Amino acid sequence: MTSFRAKLYVALVHYPVVNKNNEVISSAVTNLDLHDIARACRTYGVDRFYVATPLADQQKLITRLVSHWISGVGAVNNPLRREALKVVRVKDSLDQVCQAIYQRDAKLPKTVVTSAASHPNNISFCQLGKMLSGAAPLVLVFGTAWGLAEPCFEQADYILEPIQGDTCEGETGYNHLAVRSAASIILDRVQTLHSHL
Amino acid sequence: MTSFRAKLYVALVHYPVVNKNNEVISSAVTNLDLHDIARACRTYGVDRFYVATPLADQQKLITRLVSHWISGVGAVNNPLRREALKVVRVKDSLDQVCQAIYQRDAKLPKTVVTSAASHPNNISFCQLGKMLSGAAPLVLVFGTAWGLAEPCFEQADYILEPIQGDTCEGETGYNHLAVRSAASIILDRVQTLHSHL
Repeated sequence: MTSFRAKLYVALVHYPVVNKNNEVISSAVTNLDLHDIARACRTYGVDRFYVATPLADQQKLITRLVSHWISGVGAVNNPLRREALKVVRVKDSLDQVCQAIYQRDAKLPKTVVTSAASHPNNISFCQLGKMLSGAAPLVLVFGTAWGLAEPCFEQADYILEPIQGDTCEGETGYNHLAVRSAASIILDRVQTLHSHL
Repeated sequence: MTSFRAKLYVALVHYPVVNKNNEVISSAVTNLDLHDIARACRTYGVDRFYVATPLADQQKLITRLVSHWISGVGAVNNPLRREALKVVRVKDSLDQVCQAIYQRDAKLPKTVVTSAASHPNNISFCQLGKMLSGAAPLVLVFGTAWGLAEPCFEQADYILEPIQGDTCEGETGYNHLAVRSAASIILDRVQTLHSHL
């Protein structure tokens, strides 16, 4: 598992994402996104969970929320939560996330963008599994609000196939998971795929 | 998938659960538990998500939160969320959950209790997968706060093995997932197991 630990990252993007009318917005940070995804990252051996927002007040809010658990009262009350939230880093943009990974690993990561919708050039979970033994670090990119905006897909190295839930309803089945759930499920699937390599 | 749809249920228990000092408590309802687990249930074809609490004020709160999305302003603003929250039902206790399932299916369900800790008589995910083709309905039981209290394990028909995350740290690895994440991951694993039957 050592190579997996060194190579897999998670990014949660708050801009550019779309609202329910498909307009590009910068979304507000959700406290439990930070907690749940940090806990999943820590559980599945992901060292860094990057939260990307260009808004200074939102960056300040994230830093404050995380500090409560890293060095504030929360750190004493719940050391396990501290352990998880230590993986969080705040960045302006996905570009900055990639730069930070480059500085850690001396390699630019490949971006693996996620979506609840199918795209013509989706890669499968199985293909993602094979990429885990490649040389490049990978960053799994998740969108908040109603999902990542179009430029994210255009600039992505890879677009991961959507999680299909109840396939008896076929491609049009309901798959409106919380981003917290989607990130947890994808990390679990990646680990399963990796353990089969 | 039809048999799976008819047979699998999810219950989220708020009493008896333990706090971080291992004292038995009745926990407060978390709004996003309702949303995230309902969305995962709807995605994976689970018809009923039972929320169990004996506290009248908490039951009222759940009913109010859910009503906002089923018949209030939320239903118009976000019909997909309505679709998910329609699966929620409030009950006093796990016993009442089992009675409600009995009334639906004319069979008492087997309880499959979950935990982040290992138990001597755990069943594996693989064994759970095989039970999906059995005759009895199954109810996956999740605890809030620091997890289900001891009586839940004593009374359970089955205790599911914990989700193991980063196994390079072995059995003592970090696996402190949010209950929202754990429920999502377990439903995803169940679907994968079921599709292999």
